[in-house]
Amino acid sequence: MRLLPALLIAVAGIPAAAHADALRDQALDLFKPLPSTIPAIKDNPVTPEKITLGRSLFFDPRLSASGVFSCYSCHNLATGGDDNMETSVGHGWQKGPRNAPTALNAVLNEAQFWDGRADDLKAQAKGPIQAGVEMANTPDNVVATLASMPDYVSKFRAAFPGEGDAVTFDNMARAIEAFEATLITPAPFDAWLNGDDHALTAEAKAGLQLFVDKGCSSCHSGVNVGGHGYYPFGLIEKPGSEVLPPGDKGRFAVTETADDEYVFRAAPLRNVGVTAPYFHSGKVWDLSVAVDIMAESQLGEALQPQETKALVAFLDSLTGTMPEVVVPVLPAETATTPRPTSEIQ
Amino acid sequence: MRLLPALLIAVAGIPAAAHADALRDQALDLFKPLPSTIPAIKDNPVTPEKITLGRSLFFDPRLSASGVFSCYSCHNLATGGDDNMETSVGHGWQKGPRNAPTALNAVLNEAQFWDGRADDLKAQAKGPIQAGVEMANTPDNVVATLASMPDYVSKFRAAFPGEGDAVTFDNMARAIEAFEATLITPAPFDAWLNGDDHALTAEAKAGLQLFVDKGCSSCHSGVNVGGHGYYPFGLIEKPGSEVLPPGDKGRFAVTETADDEYVFRAAPLRNVGVTAPYFHSGKVWDLSVAVDIMAESQLGEALQPQETKALVAFLDSLTGTMPEVVVPVLPAETATTPRPTSEIQ
Repeated sequence: MRLLPALLIAVAGIPAAAHADALRDQALDLFKPLPSTIPAIKDNPVTPEKITLGRSLFFDPRLSASGVFSCYSCHNLATGGDDNMETSVGHGWQKGPRNAPTALNAVLNEAQFWDGRADDLKAQAKGPIQAGVEMANTPDNVVATLASMPDYVSKFRAAFPGEGDAVTFDNMARAIEAFEATLITPAPFDAWLNGDDHALTAEAKAGLQLFVDKGCSSCHSGVNVGGHGYYPFGLIEKPGSEVLPPGDKGRFAVTETADDEYVFRAAPLRNVGVTAPYFHSGKVWDLSVAVDIMAESQLGEALQPQETKALVAFLDSLTGTMPEVVVPVLPAETATTPRPTSEIQ
Repeated sequence: MRLLPALLIAVAGIPAAAHADALRDQALDLFKPLPSTIPAIKDNPVTPEKITLGRSLFFDPRLSASGVFSCYSCHNLATGGDDNMETSVGHGWQKGPRNAPTALNAVLNEAQFWDGRADDLKAQAKGPIQAGVEMANTPDNVVATLASMPDYVSKFRAAFPGEGDAVTFDNMARAIEAFEATLITPAPFDAWLNGDDHALTAEAKAGLQLFVDKGCSSCHSGVNVGGHGYYPFGLIEKPGSEVLPPGDKGRFAVTETADDEYVFRAAPLRNVGVTAPYFHSGKVWDLSVAVDIMAESQLGEALQPQETKALVAFLDSLTGTMPEVVVPVLPAETATTPRPTSEIQ
């Protein structure tokens, strides 16, 4: 007799559970929870030594010509893995052309940069270091800098054993990629996908249902809820020129194919709630406004305020828990370390 | 019989031990090992809540007008608590007038800045935030920024309980000071002062003896081996104008007393081996060269190469162990957070 109330509750609970399961089944067809282990990287086995070296490099401002900027400067791990600016400020106070994307979970993107021009993070890492408006350095100067510090040399040897010349620009990029592979941020959405019914609020679940039903998930899907696939920004209706500046034709610059004009990689949406401002132009600070712009430009739909609100609640459930990152202690310069220069070439 | 050899060694060891004790006694009269607990701060009790808040503030680039610079930018905890540049690069790519001093153990300095114009770190912290060539912000804009983020507001309330208006520019500075009080770096020299004969090499001990005998310790003494007391740079002979630019008259600008022309606070020497370049001008990268310049300009002495080498060995024994600092997760901006501006006023 004592068991009956529990049994009644269990029976009464079936419809709700069934409903949650239906949404979850639908979601699991489209999305994937983050892995519980560091993702494997093709052609770059992740080892503890590589992670340690990569963390040092990620934090080292001496990878820039001026000594002012490190990877961390624009991919700030204290602020969602980006820099909270429209576009980054770099060497000589120059402004970058596009909003800095987050480094968090980036290892799981199919390609890197807004136009997908780098296949992976080891290719990506080499870009900003050499870009004149960002870190303005050269591979030769980076290698000379690193090779001038014995502690770096032994860290490279430990990370790339058996290589005669371990301190190379390629290995620097591989180590940075290995460190970035640790920047995985499991979120309430993952807990829910993994079976915890209480991990999402009712509003977030309603937002997820809208996200699927309206078609957002046609482009923003997979483990990073985006980050793979290329689509024209303004599929149905081009947004205003402030949000979509005519001068930046997106993937067209990579493929030189007319079809790729204003085509961008679908943004990965993990941690979108803490990585304002939005879009490649970085012109929109309010996530609700960004959601409305996407609904209009990509789906031709004007959302009701409560729909926008529910979608934002779902997107906020993608804000994850940062792994603990301890600030590294970097090797000190030596007599042969190239000196920083803030001059603009 | 088996005990004899050990006894003989012990007896033979006496003179060396006595010698070590004599040097240690001399050293303990002049210097002090770092404390094993967080130093107390006058008028600002250090609490865990204040430290947590202060760490967030220290790492937050939104304390600068541009959103580019945080305290951490120039007082980089990965590179000895400074930025390894002659003078720092700040807002609008402007250069600061003097070399950025290390934040490590700075709480133990008697006064802050090269000219001692701030009594303590809470006064110091307010300087760079407002300096036009550094973070170029205003107290009002900083408070508006912090008060716009509910997570910051509750952190301020936890750190300053019972204060009606906890989010103030003063409290920001107090919290930063509390965090900086945790940046204490015990070094081999401390272990030796505390009684570990093996913590210093013979060369470092010889360097310490020279440091005392030549008179370096007349100015560089106390727990930070400097950081208190003011002395003319070029007491015996002015160094060249590159190292001592005629335009920067040091403490004269603070006191407007002719006696204070080219007077500076004796630099605290902890971690000097990892905080090149040297002097307020930041013009000297090699510690040996800096030591020679000091010997000539302050003591009127030309050192023998082996003396310089021993002095550098002693100074290297002041390089301490960094406490583990975990990168904080900062509150995300809200709709009312003032936006960053890279414009130069």
